[in-house]
Amino acid sequence: MVRIALGQIDPTVGDLQGNVDRMIAWTARATEARADLIAFPELAITGYPPEDLVLRDAFVQDNLEALHRLARETSGGATVLTGFVDRSEAGLHNAAGVLSGGDVIARYRKIKLPNYGVFDERRTFTAGTEPGGVRLAGTDLGISICEDAWTPGPPFDAYAQAGTPVVLNINGSPYHRGKAGEREEICRARALETGAWLVYVNMVGGQDELVFDGGSIVVAPDGSVRHRASRFAEDLLLVDIDGELSSADDRPAWVTEPQEVYRALELGLRDYVVKNGFTEVCLGLSGGVDSAFVATLAADALGPDAVRGVAMPSRYSSPESLEDARELATRLAIRFDVLEIDPAFRAYLETLAGPFAGTAPGLAEENLQARVRGNLLMALSNRFGCLVLATGNKSENAVGYATLYGDMAGGLAPIKDVPKTLVYELVRWRNAQGPGEGPIPQRTVTKPPSAELRPEQKDTDSLPPYDVLDPLIEAYVEEDGSPEEIVAEGADPVLVERVIAMIDRAEHKRRQSAPGIKITPKAFGRDRRMPITNRYLHDPVRPVPPRTTGPA
Amino acid sequence: MVRIALGQIDPTVGDLQGNVDRMIAWTARATEARADLIAFPELAITGYPPEDLVLRDAFVQDNLEALHRLARETSGGATVLTGFVDRSEAGLHNAAGVLSGGDVIARYRKIKLPNYGVFDERRTFTAGTEPGGVRLAGTDLGISICEDAWTPGPPFDAYAQAGTPVVLNINGSPYHRGKAGEREEICRARALETGAWLVYVNMVGGQDELVFDGGSIVVAPDGSVRHRASRFAEDLLLVDIDGELSSADDRPAWVTEPQEVYRALELGLRDYVVKNGFTEVCLGLSGGVDSAFVATLAADALGPDAVRGVAMPSRYSSPESLEDARELATRLAIRFDVLEIDPAFRAYLETLAGPFAGTAPGLAEENLQARVRGNLLMALSNRFGCLVLATGNKSENAVGYATLYGDMAGGLAPIKDVPKTLVYELVRWRNAQGPGEGPIPQRTVTKPPSAELRPEQKDTDSLPPYDVLDPLIEAYVEEDGSPEEIVAEGADPVLVERVIAMIDRAEHKRRQSAPGIKITPKAFGRDRRMPITNRYLHDPVRPVPPRTTGPA
Repeated sequence: MVRIALGQIDPTVGDLQGNVDRMIAWTARATEARADLIAFPELAITGYPPEDLVLRDAFVQDNLEALHRLARETSGGATVLTGFVDRSEAGLHNAAGVLSGGDVIARYRKIKLPNYGVFDERRTFTAGTEPGGVRLAGTDLGISICEDAWTPGPPFDAYAQAGTPVVLNINGSPYHRGKAGEREEICRARALETGAWLVYVNMVGGQDELVFDGGSIVVAPDGSVRHRASRFAEDLLLVDIDGELSSADDRPAWVTEPQEVYRALELGLRDYVVKNGFTEVCLGLSGGVDSAFVATLAADALGPDAVRGVAMPSRYSSPESLEDARELATRLAIRFDVLEIDPAFRAYLETLAGPFAGTAPGLAEENLQARVRGNLLMALSNRFGCLVLATGNKSENAVGYATLYGDMAGGLAPIKDVPKTLVYELVRWRNAQGPGEGPIPQRTVTKPPSAELRPEQKDTDSLPPYDVLDPLIEAYVEEDGSPEEIVAEGADPVLVERVIAMIDRAEHKRRQSAPGIKITPKAFGRDRRMPITNRYLHDPVRPVPPRTTGPA
Repeated sequence: MVRIALGQIDPTVGDLQGNVDRMIAWTARATEARADLIAFPELAITGYPPEDLVLRDAFVQDNLEALHRLARETSGGATVLTGFVDRSEAGLHNAAGVLSGGDVIARYRKIKLPNYGVFDERRTFTAGTEPGGVRLAGTDLGISICEDAWTPGPPFDAYAQAGTPVVLNINGSPYHRGKAGEREEICRARALETGAWLVYVNMVGGQDELVFDGGSIVVAPDGSVRHRASRFAEDLLLVDIDGELSSADDRPAWVTEPQEVYRALELGLRDYVVKNGFTEVCLGLSGGVDSAFVATLAADALGPDAVRGVAMPSRYSSPESLEDARELATRLAIRFDVLEIDPAFRAYLETLAGPFAGTAPGLAEENLQARVRGNLLMALSNRFGCLVLATGNKSENAVGYATLYGDMAGGLAPIKDVPKTLVYELVRWRNAQGPGEGPIPQRTVTKPPSAELRPEQKDTDSLPPYDVLDPLIEAYVEEDGSPEEIVAEGADPVLVERVIAMIDRAEHKRRQSAPGIKITPKAFGRDRRMPITNRYLHDPVRPVPPRTTGPA
């Protein structure tokens, strides 16, 4: 019988010392529990993804020294399997090291390097070619890393041929909706093909735009999932494998949507704030559903004392909006301030009276109001050190219904990858958790969305209803559908053309947006690398009309 | 004898129709000049780099149809070699097609796919494996694409073995300082090894952050460069190869630095503005050297009528600054407005009086002033459709000596990759071109740099002198040097630590900065992919201090 500990930890990118300290402490726990081996996630030494830090020789050297320190300081305990950056004559490798008796006794180099979506591994790493493993307690353990398990072939074919009874797979596998199910499927497929136990160890925690959701699993050779570690939290899971599994799965069942998305956002927000050394966040509260949701998320993630809400009513804001913002703050027990934007707005209009003479008011005035709000929040950030949260959602971000340097201002945009219709769903779920009727006032949820930047403005003046818009965004952005394909699914051709043009022309805005937490299969940003200068789908004979920078 | 036309054109990404129209017109010119073949750049059908557009099936299909239209519409003329996205069972390919008689008569698929620096080709393309070519006028012509020529091996080894007398190499090779020399060296090496003429055809024009500088060349089998096309402009170069070269090189000699950098910036700025459908730009004129230089560049690139300068003095601005800004505008003959920032600034301070009560003025007040300026420019952009130019340089961008949503606001940051010391060098060069003593007032050049956001402020209050700072930035950013290595070169250890911390902690600002034109071997942005959350080189025991968002 071999006892394996799954060390589902939350490392920090670049924190070589802290990550090793954490692994030393967890190895001591595993040793105490008489584990033969503890497996940590992919690149747990450096954090994942280390990106171009790996291109610095000194960083690679420091990571190797950190690996050797981990080996030395765990020498009396359980064998350790951990991820690190290895170096060979062929180049750098995304590698796994087996540490025992103070030494690195075996190495495995990732064979399949993902270079799609958010991944750039062929940029920095050279692929390995050989299987690898270690024999412990009379049991052969094969080693693999993340992407290695996503398709048949090496190294699993070698483990199948050798009859290796257990294969370890260490991961830095980021979350998106439905990912846990995909992972189970590929793990089941590999276990069945290989005829081996598959021990899948994932990372947990937030790193910039990515959330690692944990959810480590153990799959039997018959393809059944036997153990599930926690999701969205660190976890040390112990399993005994001896032909059969002699340990019991005692973790609670995994949460499902929409709670799952909520937990991902909460973890992503908390880790971004904490790992960057902030202790407080601030955000504008408009009385609308997006800001109410982000405030709730932040209060849940960081505690209400760490959240500062600021209502910044305009001359066009309804009194109800201010009331709803205040009510939300009261229910969340977060700090609440009211700052008027009209004095600064009026000052701008006076200053601009000369150049604006004889022109009709429009987008410029709307955007100015949004930018006064952005500036006030940034001033609070500069003075008090709070991280500004931008509250825009994916639907707005897609079509550019947002003001650069205005409501887009902030250090983090937590719901940037959450479509508006999903925001509503998450709000309903969260309110159902209470206390009472929940933190978000009913009127906030039921009133028609509005930027309140001109009289009687509604989002639907400029956009189709969100339940019409969101499926179009999904079809064009996430599925790369052509206008023809989207129309063939039943959408209105004129609307499709308009929405696609809006999406394409907002690329310059998205390029300057705050980082957001990826929760869909394709987020804006490194997941979708589109040129700003791009005439595809626009009539090349007719020049592209000048783009606006605000709503509409 | 074979007569080859080098079609050094400026395509636009996504403009399949426009790019093909251009190639049809150029092929007619080459046919008229009795060329046997005209060679266009890499991916000339789609523009380069098409990035994730290639992941859309419809885009690839449309590009294939565009290729066939080009074949049809040039069927009576010279043979065409052009770049396109090919599709096979193995995947998508960065390919070259030979078009003759209305058909695609040969295809070549790029073997070496760059996936470093600004390049992500393995993200979208599958590598080819075979050499390819065409026989014309009794001469075998081998084909290769860009990166294929950067190292020995396939396909050049096959051409050497076959005794192929001429190898065509089509490129989308972006500019950086010194790149033209690097290219000549690798072309000479390949020509010598292969024993063949090398016809190197590059693209010209700006695409987002990249500038393609043209500079196509013809290299003899003895490694000597025999022909040079223009740089920074479209060019149709005709060469006759018949064992020897029977055509004469009649192009003017290439420009050298600093003029070369100036031309690159000019082209990058012009193409960004024009290809995105703008006809006017606006920018703040502080009286300082950066904004004076960007205004000059814009006036040279677009004509003075397309440039709108706005002085926005603060309570801390010296009268000389305003005079110098006005003098610059007069000399450039650009539009000039003065907008006061103090009314809006005062309104902000009154609005913030409550939350700011009992705190000392500082960074928040400095940044507010910068942000009032950003907002005023964006208001002009919203009202009049001018593209805002941000005027920050690489030195400021590196250490974060800039205000997010303030002086960093804009659609394009032309000198974002130009270190401050190089800005001075470019200014001296440009002034020497006249008229008279040049556009930039002497006082602008000689006075100590200052943000003028508090009394008596100088850049050197917060930063080392730029001639000390710039080499440190180059060592850390462009050369990935470690603190130890940089200190070993003779730098002050305390200063090195401070500068590196500033650079690392400004990553969140750079992530929201406007696109800029790459002119150094490593620009910020896709060229250098660093995590925001990053504890490397920071003491992990001591939390990272909250980061500021403004100067200092």
